[in-house]
Amino acid sequence: MSEVRMERMSWVEYRRRVETDDPVVFLPCGSLEQHGPHLPLGVDAMLSTAVACEAARRCGGIVAPALAYGYKSQPRCGGGQHFPGTTSLDGDHLSQLARDVIREFARHGVRKLALVDGHYENQWFLIEGIDLALRDLGRDCGLRVLRTEYWDFCTEDVLGEVFPDGFPGFALEHAAVIETSLMLHFHPDLVWTDRIPDDGPAEFPPYDLYPPETERVPPSGVLSSARGASAAKGALLAEAVCGGLAQAVAAAFA
Amino acid sequence: MSEVRMERMSWVEYRRRVETDDPVVFLPCGSLEQHGPHLPLGVDAMLSTAVACEAARRCGGIVAPALAYGYKSQPRCGGGQHFPGTTSLDGDHLSQLARDVIREFARHGVRKLALVDGHYENQWFLIEGIDLALRDLGRDCGLRVLRTEYWDFCTEDVLGEVFPDGFPGFALEHAAVIETSLMLHFHPDLVWTDRIPDDGPAEFPPYDLYPPETERVPPSGVLSSARGASAAKGALLAEAVCGGLAQAVAAAFA
Amino acid sequence: MSEVRMERMSWVEYRRRVETDDPVVFLPCGSLEQHGPHLPLGVDAMLSTAVACEAARRCGGIVAPALAYGYKSQPRCGGGQHFPGTTSLDGDHLSQLARDVIREFARHGVRKLALVDGHYENQWFLIEGIDLALRDLGRDCGLRVLRTEYWDFCTEDVLGEVFPDGFPGFALEHAAVIETSLMLHFHPDLVWTDRIPDDGPAEFPPYDLYPPETERVPPSGVLSSARGASAAKGALLAEAVCGGLAQAVAAAFA
Amino acid sequence: MSEVRMERMSWVEYRRRVETDDPVVFLPCGSLEQHGPHLPLGVDAMLSTAVACEAARRCGGIVAPALAYGYKSQPRCGGGQHFPGTTSLDGDHLSQLARDVIREFARHGVRKLALVDGHYENQWFLIEGIDLALRDLGRDCGLRVLRTEYWDFCTEDVLGEVFPDGFPGFALEHAAVIETSLMLHFHPDLVWTDRIPDDGPAEFPPYDLYPPETERVPPSGVLSSARGASAAKGALLAEAVCGGLAQAVAAAFA
Amino acid sequence: MSEVRMERMSWVEYRRRVETDDPVVFLPCGSLEQHGPHLPLGVDAMLSTAVACEAARRCGGIVAPALAYGYKSQPRCGGGQHFPGTTSLDGDHLSQLARDVIREFARHGVRKLALVDGHYENQWFLIEGIDLALRDLGRDCGLRVLRTEYWDFCTEDVLGEVFPDGFPGFALEHAAVIETSLMLHFHPDLVWTDRIPDDGPAEFPPYDLYPPETERVPPSGVLSSARGASAAKGALLAEAVCGGLAQAVAAAFA
Amino acid sequence: MSEVRMERMSWVEYRRRVETDDPVVFLPCGSLEQHGPHLPLGVDAMLSTAVACEAARRCGGIVAPALAYGYKSQPRCGGGQHFPGTTSLDGDHLSQLARDVIREFARHGVRKLALVDGHYENQWFLIEGIDLALRDLGRDCGLRVLRTEYWDFCTEDVLGEVFPDGFPGFALEHAAVIETSLMLHFHPDLVWTDRIPDDGPAEFPPYDLYPPETERVPPSGVLSSARGASAAKGALLAEAVCGGLAQAVAAAFA
Repeated sequence: MSEVRMERMSWVEYRRRVETDDPVVFLPCGSLEQHGPHLPLGVDAMLSTAVACEAARRCGGIVAPALAYGYKSQPRCGGGQHFPGTTSLDGDHLSQLARDVIREFARHGVRKLALVDGHYENQWFLIEGIDLALRDLGRDCGLRVLRTEYWDFCTEDVLGEVFPDGFPGFALEHAAVIETSLMLHFHPDLVWTDRIPDDGPAEFPPYDLYPPETERVPPSGVLSSARGASAAKGALLAEAVCGGLAQAVAAAFA
Repeated sequence: MSEVRMERMSWVEYRRRVETDDPVVFLPCGSLEQHGPHLPLGVDAMLSTAVACEAARRCGGIVAPALAYGYKSQPRCGGGQHFPGTTSLDGDHLSQLARDVIREFARHGVRKLALVDGHYENQWFLIEGIDLALRDLGRDCGLRVLRTEYWDFCTEDVLGEVFPDGFPGFALEHAAVIETSLMLHFHPDLVWTDRIPDDGPAEFPPYDLYPPETERVPPSGVLSSARGASAAKGALLAEAVCGGLAQAVAAAFA
Repeated sequence: MSEVRMERMSWVEYRRRVETDDPVVFLPCGSLEQHGPHLPLGVDAMLSTAVACEAARRCGGIVAPALAYGYKSQPRCGGGQHFPGTTSLDGDHLSQLARDVIREFARHGVRKLALVDGHYENQWFLIEGIDLALRDLGRDCGLRVLRTEYWDFCTEDVLGEVFPDGFPGFALEHAAVIETSLMLHFHPDLVWTDRIPDDGPAEFPPYDLYPPETERVPPSGVLSSARGASAAKGALLAEAVCGGLAQAVAAAFA
Repeated sequence: MSEVRMERMSWVEYRRRVETDDPVVFLPCGSLEQHGPHLPLGVDAMLSTAVACEAARRCGGIVAPALAYGYKSQPRCGGGQHFPGTTSLDGDHLSQLARDVIREFARHGVRKLALVDGHYENQWFLIEGIDLALRDLGRDCGLRVLRTEYWDFCTEDVLGEVFPDGFPGFALEHAAVIETSLMLHFHPDLVWTDRIPDDGPAEFPPYDLYPPETERVPPSGVLSSARGASAAKGALLAEAVCGGLAQAVAAAFA
Repeated sequence: MSEVRMERMSWVEYRRRVETDDPVVFLPCGSLEQHGPHLPLGVDAMLSTAVACEAARRCGGIVAPALAYGYKSQPRCGGGQHFPGTTSLDGDHLSQLARDVIREFARHGVRKLALVDGHYENQWFLIEGIDLALRDLGRDCGLRVLRTEYWDFCTEDVLGEVFPDGFPGFALEHAAVIETSLMLHFHPDLVWTDRIPDDGPAEFPPYDLYPPETERVPPSGVLSSARGASAAKGALLAEAVCGGLAQAVAAAFA
Repeated sequence: MSEVRMERMSWVEYRRRVETDDPVVFLPCGSLEQHGPHLPLGVDAMLSTAVACEAARRCGGIVAPALAYGYKSQPRCGGGQHFPGTTSLDGDHLSQLARDVIREFARHGVRKLALVDGHYENQWFLIEGIDLALRDLGRDCGLRVLRTEYWDFCTEDVLGEVFPDGFPGFALEHAAVIETSLMLHFHPDLVWTDRIPDDGPAEFPPYDLYPPETERVPPSGVLSSARGASAAKGALLAEAVCGGLAQAVAAAFA
């Protein structure tokens, strides 16, 4: 099978692929962030990379190295910055990182770029990075950029199967059923199922306080229980997400 | 009734209030952005200011001048940057603006600050501005900051009354029922009800494309119809939001 | 009478005006800064907005929302940063704010932009913001920008009438006769004439010291007495300034 | 006579002076800017350095290397950026340059720093650089900073002698009588008196336009004639300025 | 064997390790850069990570995710920015990335941090990132940082064995004998030995030109031939470098 | 002899030279940095300026004012930032300074620019400044930039004569034989030969530590002894460097 990971290709091979195939280049965007006692710190980069690789295999794409560090973790979606191990960037620095890298892909002749975000907190700083890069390049530069948080490809049907008792919403899915199931599918050696905590779901008021109210976040860092996770659910989710992403780039860049 | 707007107080009066009352200072965060043919460009600053003023009246607070320009409008929540009139800032510049202003309130002796955001796209750049300001000030500076998108105080009951046929979600509420009703309540002279468009709701895929797919956005700029808006619903929403905000600051800063 | 304030127009109306009339867009630039015990903190934004609105009415222009926060107050022209209530921005942040907004007006198709500055300390950071925006846009972008500190339209005749005992110079006019008179003309409800202090004029050496010598600044924050202010003088000054500005844009953008 | 120029001292000598004498360190701030056909591009750095050196000789101070490049030349005070040879910095970059250098002097143990500005356009970006440095250092850092535009030490008596027909104001003194006289005093080999133009004084309206109206600026770059300049006037001005500066630092840092 | 890679640990395990062992945290710093037709684009991150992991295994350390993108490639040490595939950052953005990450490790309680640079062009921007982070943290923060370009641990003995005909210097070792040998040792599946070019060594004058003289760089991107590379030499080099690094952190952080 | 220093020319003369001669403009890049007890703080700017002036005399070039402040001194090549007198800039600020100045020379019509660096630590921030300026200007702007550390023009023959016992490498040449000899040649009045220390050469491990290990740096700040310096060697070195630079610009800009 053809190599999909850019860092494992020589520049000659990469140039050939870009010139010949007009491929989609995927840029996974992750974080180094606590994901509970049962998942590793690198979940977001691992999953966005895994999703991007599978989509790339389906559409003849190329996957660039992940942005391994992301924006600051927020209590209501990632637990917050008070956890050791969470290692985050200032917002503008993340935007500039994305901006530089996007500008470089355009220089290579890439015309189809897909940012696959696996860390919710990254979203707006990636949007800004894309906007700044396109401003630099000029609107007629020929580069189009797709950006997605990969879980948005979960269909209602799939969510119905994964959450038979009702989907609590993506907001609390940090280190919970979706991420744990996907890790059981893609990286089962990096899930310590015996350490899945059973904290009830975190509850947040309709506002945020700073410095954060860390007492609202379960000490485990898990915002709702991952007890319902399974590799089978992970396979289902992975198919929805990877298939959806592959179709999306086909449609968007047609 | 006591003045709530900071720009209308003398510095002597402001100092007295801060020293004597330990008041909440509200900072409304708006935008200058298209809101359809039936609402004015300044809706977000007007509504966040109106909500902040009413909450301030209830809790003895002070309302600072709104940030009148906000982050770049996105197609799926604000229509996008292709509309004339929409006048937006780079993300980092908005963060730095918030950072500077917050640092100044701390210098004044303010200990309770509430950012009332009326423009969804501002959210993460305000979060970053708050974080940078608190980093500058040091964590033991005595200032606490609350940040909210004001519509998050709409309870399910209220949404049920406002949307008898079901709430389509905040995502499409740009220039739609909630904002139009609130404007009919707070600024009826600035709603041109005869120009409310009847476009069906916009539909977006689970990703964004850049440069944006402007053809997905109704040419009016309204993401779902505002036909169901009324001043009565505006009063109901205003009470939920202003009351909720007043209670929130009381609870959060207790 | 036709609406002049941009934030009160719909985008459809704004687009029509810009496309049809090639209007001057005015951007008032203010501050939130102590103006003595007898004037409110928002004087600079209020007066630059009032002047811009009157000029816009005379020339068919449009007035954008004011920049409500300005550069740091200096002892010799604004009293200094040690006053509670004064809420200021770093210089570069103000420049970037102006730069972003100017670039947006160019995108809208505006070709005539007038920055009406009401806060002396803003001047050079606005100059830089204009220069950076024009560099971004390219020199053949079609946008021309006028910048003025509005009081520079006071003619010698008018100053002679307003200061029968001799004009002490703009340097000490902070919260003094000119600003107080203009407020009595435009916003009489926001002048507390019974609190006008009677401090003698501040005196400064031919240098500045940092951290500032706050003892040189009268404790009231007024750099020379406003006792001579009157609504009649305000009307005279307003006519000179608004008429001068309207004529200036007509001449400059002819 | 003891060396006053820092770049000509060894670090051992500099340390000894700082530790023993608690000297004033002077930082001349210049530009590389057209000064008419009769003066060299480096006038502002040369004169601010010359003034600082003479003041340093009188008070036992030290003169650091000048900032040789300054903020962008403006038509009404420096002729504007359209002249070849004028070589200018963005405002923030000048501020950061001053900030860094000031922070370093504080690290050396310097407690008395005087910025001697010879280029009017630098003023506000130096103010910002000082403010940012003092924010970095903390207000109890022990460093005090004086900033002056050196010509502000010209007394009315001296101006009366130099301009027997009346002083036209500093605004038009670019490359005119004051600077030319001072150059005849300090650097007579760099004044080409036979090339002094005789343009009438430039006239400017009470606003600025961007892109600049270069036709308002005399083609020579001189804003009012330097015909009245002489070495004798230069000596008089130099004494006023250098003596005034030496007295000012004595008073300010007492 | 204990896990050394931070992204594969849970935050609970990471916290335990940091609190209990006071471990060295290694931060590999790489690039995405052409490395000839026989090596993959990700060589610098792969080798710095491999070296860091081996050193970490020897000293009980932890390896953070690599910085996968680095500073702009220069002709004389990396071939230059004209190669497709080379994907680089602005210098300040790399510095800020390092600064943020370092500040986070200090927050975690890490006291020993080692930046292992595998991309020569990164060096000075990493130095700046370290300096800025330590300025932020304060000099008494307890964090010490070691920075090395890993090849500097090659002893003269080892270089003598690897280059029996004489070592041409690190300057031309881009994609040449050292990197190719180390890749044959650590990642033999990512070396395409049949594509090793046989270009003679590149020659550069004692200056650089911009825009770069790309004709000085062999079209393959290899600055001197990798023909002499072998897995055995890679093992020798790896032992020198990994052993040297492990000893260095032991000595430096004793 | 024709003037070579830009700051001593009028803008009219400069314009004539640029228009008529298409001259090389040299920009010396220095520092204010300790150079032992026997050399002054300004060595790097003095020597880069002296070299540039001599090269300019030989090729009809022009020398712009030196960048008098440079990047932070490092222990292994400049002694480090702990010495009083060393006065350094943040890296990005130096890059922006170079960027601005380069962009201005392009505006003047200069097509041949040579940065002559006399402070090793400046190198990469100058490279970045050049790259950013060329990005701003566009690749077809007509400006070419040469950058050199001047000592790289020392041929092996010359080094053999200057170091009869073997050249220890440029790394330790801070304030040592080369710089001292060149100062004896160009500025003999600023060398205090009786204070040349006789410290043995500094030794550094193959890594750097931060905060720096200042105990590795001789207290004098000299990294290897300058005892072998002489004016004769200075003349030899100067001829190699100035001649080499003059030839280089002739070849590079042909």
